Amino acid sequence: MKQLEVDLGYRSYPILIGDGILDQADILKPYISGPQVMVVSNETVAPIYLDRLVAGLPKLQVLTHVLPDGEEYKTLETLNGIFDALLAAPCDRGVTLIALGGGVVGDITGFAAACYQRGVAYIQVPTTLLAQVDSSVGGKTGVNHRLGKNMIGAFHQPRCVLADTGTLNTLEDRQLHAGIAEVIKYGLIRDPQFFTWLEENIEALLARDPAALQYAIEHSCRNKSEIVAQDEKESGIRALLNLGHTFGHAIETGIGYGQWLHGEAVAAGMCMAADLSQRIGWLAPEEAQRARRLIERAQLPVLAPGEIDADRFLELMSVDKKVQAGRLRLILLKAIGEAVITDDFDATALRDTLTACRAA
Amino acid sequence: MKQLEVDLGYRSYPILIGDGILDQADILKPYISGPQVMVVSNETVAPIYLDRLVAGLPKLQVLTHVLPDGEEYKTLETLNGIFDALLAAPCDRGVTLIALGGGVVGDITGFAAACYQRGVAYIQVPTTLLAQVDSSVGGKTGVNHRLGKNMIGAFHQPRCVLADTGTLNTLEDRQLHAGIAEVIKYGLIRDPQFFTWLEENIEALLARDPAALQYAIEHSCRNKSEIVAQDEKESGIRALLNLGHTFGHAIETGIGYGQWLHGEAVAAGMCMAADLSQRIGWLAPEEAQRARRLIERAQLPVLAPGEIDADRFLELMSVDKKVQAGRLRLILLKAIGEAVITDDFDATALRDTLTACRAA
Repeated sequence: MKQLEVDLGYRSYPILIGDGILDQADILKPYISGPQVMVVSNETVAPIYLDRLVAGLPKLQVLTHVLPDGEEYKTLETLNGIFDALLAAPCDRGVTLIALGGGVVGDITGFAAACYQRGVAYIQVPTTLLAQVDSSVGGKTGVNHRLGKNMIGAFHQPRCVLADTGTLNTLEDRQLHAGIAEVIKYGLIRDPQFFTWLEENIEALLARDPAALQYAIEHSCRNKSEIVAQDEKESGIRALLNLGHTFGHAIETGIGYGQWLHGEAVAAGMCMAADLSQRIGWLAPEEAQRARRLIERAQLPVLAPGEIDADRFLELMSVDKKVQAGRLRLILLKAIGEAVITDDFDATALRDTLTACRAA
Repeated sequence: MKQLEVDLGYRSYPILIGDGILDQADILKPYISGPQVMVVSNETVAPIYLDRLVAGLPKLQVLTHVLPDGEEYKTLETLNGIFDALLAAPCDRGVTLIALGGGVVGDITGFAAACYQRGVAYIQVPTTLLAQVDSSVGGKTGVNHRLGKNMIGAFHQPRCVLADTGTLNTLEDRQLHAGIAEVIKYGLIRDPQFFTWLEENIEALLARDPAALQYAIEHSCRNKSEIVAQDEKESGIRALLNLGHTFGHAIETGIGYGQWLHGEAVAAGMCMAADLSQRIGWLAPEEAQRARRLIERAQLPVLAPGEIDADRFLELMSVDKKVQAGRLRLILLKAIGEAVITDDFDATALRDTLTACRAA
């Protein structure tokens, strides 16, 4: 088992990565605050992993709560269902929530923990690649609003993240690919060696080679935890982690949650960011091509859906959280491995990108 | 104008107290973070004060959002209505929310600010005595759940509190009295001189004597800000501020929100706490009588409603946020001006209190 640390002073916490460690849930004991635990999962993950996780937990009052599966359920209503269950138990302030599932389960469970009785402890047990390399680390929690993704939420750090690489064996191919999008992101924004490694090992990842997966997860989590330790609440460099996300959120909102997976939308979004970076002369054409090519080899979309035209895209992007004083800010690339946040781009170039990077 | 400071390091903020200062909203300028402001009020307060406040604000994009009036609207649904308005505008992360109204408006607006885009700035402009002396100071925000009051929320400190004592002139008598309950609370828990002052000046307060009101507000805010500065997130002494609240919340939940005002329920709850403190030999009978007598003179209830019997009361109290590891903890009195938090009380004595302090 590998252990990384997210360094946040007295709120620091470990990321535990290993094959089969879900069955050793007693390693979570130091991170559980009282005698009550509620495991929140979804209807897809619970039948496979819930009993295994619960069997390993220390002797406690263990409650479980199963959500429907899908981004379309990442809402205030679903959140309120968790509060109903916590209050019906009733669970007190000493309860520890455990999120067992992908990014949606993690985000909504973390937000429930942030708000229940003004804040209780929680642990992330991510079971998708996307959640293991990205959403379970860093304390961003929240739900969607019909007018924008992740618009309602809180920064609330988990006590621990337990990533069992074995759970990826039951992941659908499409979900695996979506997770690889976020892995590629770390290479693009700050880790050119990792990007090169990915170019050389993308087939091994797609084939779920255990060593390749473990390497990719570890390097992704290391990149993420270094950024979060420097800028917990995204007042600066943490925003770089949103490469492709402003475009991606617009895609997800524009076509309706649940049509494209988050990672798929981010993949197309990163290609759009690369395209715009090239248009304004920041990124060499061959570098933009390398980015696009790796995303394509990961079997991810490189174009936005044809149904969203440029005007609609701009409207959808105007509610992005990175908008400041009415100015849209984007993460763009200076090179493979070097991203910057900027509002200094030509509006015409942006419109050209939105038109050019759209499926027929 | 008086200015007190809530000392919370880099998140410190001022409480501005004065007669007519609502019309000088330009004093809020240093506490507004960007060009967008949304004033949230309710249908009772808005017609009287909204235009006056907005007229004084610096040149900004000022949006307004008016809620229905009443504790029964302190819900996730009402909260979502604020998010709808913020996203429809659309307001970005630089928006500052201003809560103009009583405790419900302040709690829900503060919680909206805590969660919108994972946290934006807000300012409290309390217009009830209860909000001026208690709920607007200290950063507790939240909404109710049908299974318990204030069960969903966050700690999120305002940038500034502006308390215009002139707004109390339009307050209904019943609301004024409910606010006095929280004023009396500070005397009971930690300020025996202030309690004595209240015994001597209760009629002046009831008659809305401006000097008496200003004195009471200032001393209440000073007590509150000293406690909050020591224990922002209620891991210790801040819990003392909940004297009477565990009983009071049970009353509010038991008879349905909006039947009794919060301060009325707290008044009866403080009498119950005094009664139990006397039964277990902590508080001299004459001191318990002094507490009860002052509350009675403030025209507040000293008994719980007859419809909640002891069993139901205990059930309602079991979801209180101060329950830890299944043990109910209460704030009890050792003397006038000395409160302690404890789970060390006789269950029979508690049941006797619940039976004795109940209206026929």
